[in-house]
Amino acid sequence: MAQKPSIPKGTRDFSPLEMSRRNYIFGTIRNVFSLYGFRQIETPAMENLSTLMGKYGEEGDKLLFKILNSGDYLRGIDRNLIESNDTARLASQLCEKGLRYDLTVPFARYVVQHRNEITFPFKRYQIQPVWRADRPQKGRYREFYQCDADVVGSDSLLNEVELLSMIDEVFRRLKIRIAIKLNNRKILAGIAELIGAPEKIVDITVAIDKIDKIGIENVNAELIERGLSEESVGALRPILEIDGTIEERVNSLEKLLEKSEVGSNGVRELRTVVNGIMETGLDARLDIDVSLARGLNYYTGTIIEVKALDVEIGSITGGGRYDNLTGVFGLPGVSGVGISFGADRIYDVLNTLNLYPEGIEHCVQVMFTNFGEKEAACALRIIKKMRDCGIQCEIYPDTAKMQKQMKYADSLGTPYVAIIGETEMSQNRITLKNMSTGEQQMLTEEEAIAIINPATSI
Amino acid sequence: MAQKPSIPKGTRDFSPLEMSRRNYIFGTIRNVFSLYGFRQIETPAMENLSTLMGKYGEEGDKLLFKILNSGDYLRGIDRNLIESNDTARLASQLCEKGLRYDLTVPFARYVVQHRNEITFPFKRYQIQPVWRADRPQKGRYREFYQCDADVVGSDSLLNEVELLSMIDEVFRRLKIRIAIKLNNRKILAGIAELIGAPEKIVDITVAIDKIDKIGIENVNAELIERGLSEESVGALRPILEIDGTIEERVNSLEKLLEKSEVGSNGVRELRTVVNGIMETGLDARLDIDVSLARGLNYYTGTIIEVKALDVEIGSITGGGRYDNLTGVFGLPGVSGVGISFGADRIYDVLNTLNLYPEGIEHCVQVMFTNFGEKEAACALRIIKKMRDCGIQCEIYPDTAKMQKQMKYADSLGTPYVAIIGETEMSQNRITLKNMSTGEQQMLTEEEAIAIINPATSI
Repeated sequence: MAQKPSIPKGTRDFSPLEMSRRNYIFGTIRNVFSLYGFRQIETPAMENLSTLMGKYGEEGDKLLFKILNSGDYLRGIDRNLIESNDTARLASQLCEKGLRYDLTVPFARYVVQHRNEITFPFKRYQIQPVWRADRPQKGRYREFYQCDADVVGSDSLLNEVELLSMIDEVFRRLKIRIAIKLNNRKILAGIAELIGAPEKIVDITVAIDKIDKIGIENVNAELIERGLSEESVGALRPILEIDGTIEERVNSLEKLLEKSEVGSNGVRELRTVVNGIMETGLDARLDIDVSLARGLNYYTGTIIEVKALDVEIGSITGGGRYDNLTGVFGLPGVSGVGISFGADRIYDVLNTLNLYPEGIEHCVQVMFTNFGEKEAACALRIIKKMRDCGIQCEIYPDTAKMQKQMKYADSLGTPYVAIIGETEMSQNRITLKNMSTGEQQMLTEEEAIAIINPATSI
Repeated sequence: MAQKPSIPKGTRDFSPLEMSRRNYIFGTIRNVFSLYGFRQIETPAMENLSTLMGKYGEEGDKLLFKILNSGDYLRGIDRNLIESNDTARLASQLCEKGLRYDLTVPFARYVVQHRNEITFPFKRYQIQPVWRADRPQKGRYREFYQCDADVVGSDSLLNEVELLSMIDEVFRRLKIRIAIKLNNRKILAGIAELIGAPEKIVDITVAIDKIDKIGIENVNAELIERGLSEESVGALRPILEIDGTIEERVNSLEKLLEKSEVGSNGVRELRTVVNGIMETGLDARLDIDVSLARGLNYYTGTIIEVKALDVEIGSITGGGRYDNLTGVFGLPGVSGVGISFGADRIYDVLNTLNLYPEGIEHCVQVMFTNFGEKEAACALRIIKKMRDCGIQCEIYPDTAKMQKQMKYADSLGTPYVAIIGETEMSQNRITLKNMSTGEQQMLTEEEAIAIINPATSI
């Protein structure tokens, strides 16, 4: 019996319409990356499990898709692991390879493996799918694309400035209004130091990260629950209540953190980045947000997060600076800073707001009818000329009824249909029908080409 | 201890240089696909194993990369399969998903699953990687790209004509000289019928497929070994020895096969396709090759194969017509015809012949030097203007020695370096250095922009 076909949960097919929309997003991001001098690399979908394991925490290890070894994969397996149902350790024997979980770890591996071929500072971008065995839900998939740009081998804060400018440019082109939130890990460390609990930096940041959701009183309650003193919590309040313009906020932070060396360094870095980006201006709204903590264990300096202003959705881009990208692969001291565009969420935002420019969905500009062998031969000759002018065109492959052929063109959104029948052939003309107005004219090839307008030149 | 990083055998990293070359190939193919009215889809990397198994023969099943189930994958496993080392059946219990092996089976699955949304005839293209657990060797990888274009839901031979024209156009643009070999499965059936051994069609085609390699005498010997009579082998000889122009060959075939109905149909189809493609002309050499049999069990009409004329390598593109693409998924009667470009072999051919056009490797057109905070701020303002003109540019992120900055630009092949020092700032000028001639001029921003030439307009 025939199988009813389906795809694994959390994965998606993309139709031609969806592909043109996605290509518009990827193309926009790619163009901006190039404009800023980032260069593309690609890494294999499969990495050695030894490359991936232990890089994403215990939970991450479980979310890796592992690939069963080929051939006699049971040879040499420790049968006790089967008896004891130790699936985690057994998996490491059954599988040598896994699907990449993000683009950062493969990039770190790439940098170490190819360090002798790379010119540093290395500005790379990478647009590829990643796979996670997460529970699928709205907006969360098991296969999704990441679009990463990183600079490694440079400590300069100019890199942060360029990355922020790139974020601004991408969303300006996509017409998505955004807020860019900025923070610095050193400011978080300074805060923890200031309130007398430097060892509680994780607890503190996890708690204050929720301030938007639960409010300051609940955050304070949580901090006391986590063992902070009333005094510490009291000292935290003015920092969390900072407001005013960007410059006022930076000035306030500077004052509040002046007794912490690390905190002051963080404020200085923040100021340099803010000044740099102000130099050339920004379309996006820029916020300083000391509660921003994403990936705390990973970032060591600047922290960046982007939210769409007009759609309720999580962050659509994020990034930051990390001081030791490649240490785990044996190459210490490689500092870097990077951003990652969440293509699938950006896609959701564009769909919600219907922000696609006109015309990206059209594939073919003109379809030629097919009323028989002679007519088709005549059409093919004209089609060749049009294609040489860069006009995307096709001929209806079968000799079908006019209505059926028109319906085909219409359902694909083809703007013009070129009709070639006996009359047209005898007069060396084609009848060009404008599918949106219904208007039709009998024209020479040259006149038709002029009307259709080449989208691309040859 | 740090791990020495590596990637799984048979997989590859692609450097920025390699990526620009590969993007040139994919871009060329994609543009031609669009020009001919094909529309892109994408399917997930992972398919249900039930979709993939049994579609590529027993050998193919072994070459599928299977993905270990997440969570408690041992639950419900038949432990006897472990005892008896029945790795094949056990794998089906340990794994529900596999990586796609080609683009054809996922496409068939797509057509059936989305048949109510699709406008037929459906002209789709798909450019995605596929994975095979093959033994890696020169030119054979475990992860490689396929670029497929298919038309389903149309019996018209115009589709063959369009696909052949598309092949010609792709290789014309890539400047690779090719021969396109044509055959028809019905001609092969006619030959088998004619020599009195219709049931031996597979043996016959397998044997005559080797004629180029081992010569006609050895082919005949093999056929006799496979149980054909001397008489049959004698009747085969004139067919294998057909020569002359394309038209002469078709005429000879018509005569030789006139007693076989299926053979005559095959010749008629071949003639229609040849006449159609001759109508608009072809840059490629066109050959009729009755020994061409690729994927015999799959193709039911036209068979297409492309070889590079100037490099010894296997076929770089292939395709043909199949009558029942989707039957296995419960939708009978969907005829189609398609071609597949072997991107990785095409890449090898272009590398061997060094056929890349100039300029595809440059990312950045101008690098700005960085001699300090003020100079960098000034550079950023000019960079913004240049980027608004579509000029790809970057600033050296660190305040380093001139020589180091120049070396960076040079090693990336950057054509221009813009130097901004105190003199330039005081005169509101930039010094533009042409990296290939060494020449440098002090210029206004506008003059510099005019020299660098925008690659893209905004």
